[in-house]
Amino acid sequence: MQPHLDAVAWDGDGILYLDQRRLPLEVRIERARTADDVAGAIASLAVRGAPCIGIFGAYGVALARAQLSDDAAFADAAARIRSARPTAVNLAWAVDRVLQAPDMLAEARAIHHEQIEMDAAIARAGLELIPQHARILTHCNTGPIATAGGGTALGIIIEAQRAGRAPVVFADETRPLLQGARLTTFELAQAGVDVTLQADAAAAIAMQRKKIDVVLVGADRIARNGDTANKIGTYALAVLAKYHGIPFYVAAPRSTFDLSLASGAEIVIEERHADEVAAFGGTRVAPEGVRVYNPAFDVTPGELIAAFVTEGGIVRPPYVTTLAPALR
Amino acid sequence: MQPHLDAVAWDGDGILYLDQRRLPLEVRIERARTADDVAGAIASLAVRGAPCIGIFGAYGVALARAQLSDDAAFADAAARIRSARPTAVNLAWAVDRVLQAPDMLAEARAIHHEQIEMDAAIARAGLELIPQHARILTHCNTGPIATAGGGTALGIIIEAQRAGRAPVVFADETRPLLQGARLTTFELAQAGVDVTLQADAAAAIAMQRKKIDVVLVGADRIARNGDTANKIGTYALAVLAKYHGIPFYVAAPRSTFDLSLASGAEIVIEERHADEVAAFGGTRVAPEGVRVYNPAFDVTPGELIAAFVTEGGIVRPPYVTTLAPALR
Repeated sequence: MQPHLDAVAWDGDGILYLDQRRLPLEVRIERARTADDVAGAIASLAVRGAPCIGIFGAYGVALARAQLSDDAAFADAAARIRSARPTAVNLAWAVDRVLQAPDMLAEARAIHHEQIEMDAAIARAGLELIPQHARILTHCNTGPIATAGGGTALGIIIEAQRAGRAPVVFADETRPLLQGARLTTFELAQAGVDVTLQADAAAAIAMQRKKIDVVLVGADRIARNGDTANKIGTYALAVLAKYHGIPFYVAAPRSTFDLSLASGAEIVIEERHADEVAAFGGTRVAPEGVRVYNPAFDVTPGELIAAFVTEGGIVRPPYVTTLAPALR
Repeated sequence: MQPHLDAVAWDGDGILYLDQRRLPLEVRIERARTADDVAGAIASLAVRGAPCIGIFGAYGVALARAQLSDDAAFADAAARIRSARPTAVNLAWAVDRVLQAPDMLAEARAIHHEQIEMDAAIARAGLELIPQHARILTHCNTGPIATAGGGTALGIIIEAQRAGRAPVVFADETRPLLQGARLTTFELAQAGVDVTLQADAAAAIAMQRKKIDVVLVGADRIARNGDTANKIGTYALAVLAKYHGIPFYVAAPRSTFDLSLASGAEIVIEERHADEVAAFGGTRVAPEGVRVYNPAFDVTPGELIAAFVTEGGIVRPPYVTTLAPALR
């Protein structure tokens, strides 16, 4: 097991962050010195993972407050951070919380500490969903790097490994940005978990022939009927899991739920640049000028989700009645 | 519309072929001068697409016969070509047919000519499945380059375009080898068809939000109950199409059906090298040593397939009773 890597850390002279785009080939720590550095690192996905973005944004607002005595300039800077990615609710939530606090840095630190505690609680709660030697399919990255804590879905898997359950994990590579190939395999291997990488398109045959017991993913935003926005490809996994009779679980902290949304139809889906699909590592793979459909997220209907795991425990359907009390 | 590109062509001094790995960035014609050149080009996917492989292999056997007077050496050469890829039935079928012919080159040419005629018949037959302005999702590459004729699934789409139906196509990139990004978008753009590229993981949201009317794919091998081996990712599309109430069609010549197979359980799934997933264009994207599950194909249950399109017409379920007479 290699030394633990912190995804983000306040160091008095700005915010240190791990440039996640370079993993697993290079472990590079950068320093954000201004609010625009923070917003830029979020928009470029150098810092990613909904909870991690929230913590990074919170420190970013505290940094801006320390640097900008002009209230209008500070408000602009905070707004730039808050809008750096439109879909993840954690970012706006964390920024707003810091803005309302008397000591912004203390509040950002509190958000970070709470995340570490929350992730630990999610990991403990999720353990009951993971049988001995469970074969688990996961998507994107939901580990310690994504949350700046212990991770959500991967946190549960790593907890199962610590508890001696020896899970066997199939990790989708997660096109277009390959967070599964680059980060999930890296984090699970670090934690000693048995992990196999596959193309997203291999998930169906893996369910059929590799005897997957559980599909376990994270979330970016969850409506009050359980509809869940998560990385593009998640919705397909939920449909495939239902077809194969495999339970589909979502692990997320309470802050990811947005009960002001009646359903997923109200969630705005971010569409990202064509080159994420049409090029790879600077090399074009599709003809010049081809049109590209590149939604960053999709919405999984709550009816396909067997349970949510939050820091408060397991929540089962019907979500329209179970979610609100579970989130209190 | 650019000039038509032949995927393979006999030229008296060997077999010319288009190196499909370099498309769409480079159009490079190579010459196979020996049986091993032919087997190597098939194994490396420089020549790909089940029917195209069959025609190329057929010419390869004729080439070997012209070069090798020793019968044992010739038999070895033919066997190397025949086994260059294990799953595609067309290759073994074409090689065996040439081996049994008195004039092997004439037989290879006949196979090629029949392919062109077959593809035209498939395109005409499939037209009835494509409504005006149909929104079509497709996977992998099934165009003229893949068959060395007019194409199967893409042949139908191009025929619909010629017939003024103005189809709108969403093409999966088709990881790991990106035949959709590299070849399908290239061929459809050449034919003037409205095409949009997407990651494989975006197929579910495309069905949901882009109002896909039809899913249309090719096949590598089909059992007598309709179970269909095709490029990895096809099975997921069929499950997703069923969930969204979208008809899922498979276009393939009669030679792709293997009625000696009772079901897809008898189809051997080729697993390919880990680096196809763990690296991209020579750059690693996953940690060194990570285990990879990389099946080249999956098997779609016949019960998920609304119809097959062959050169003889449309075949509908129940396939155990309809396929055999349709293939006579």
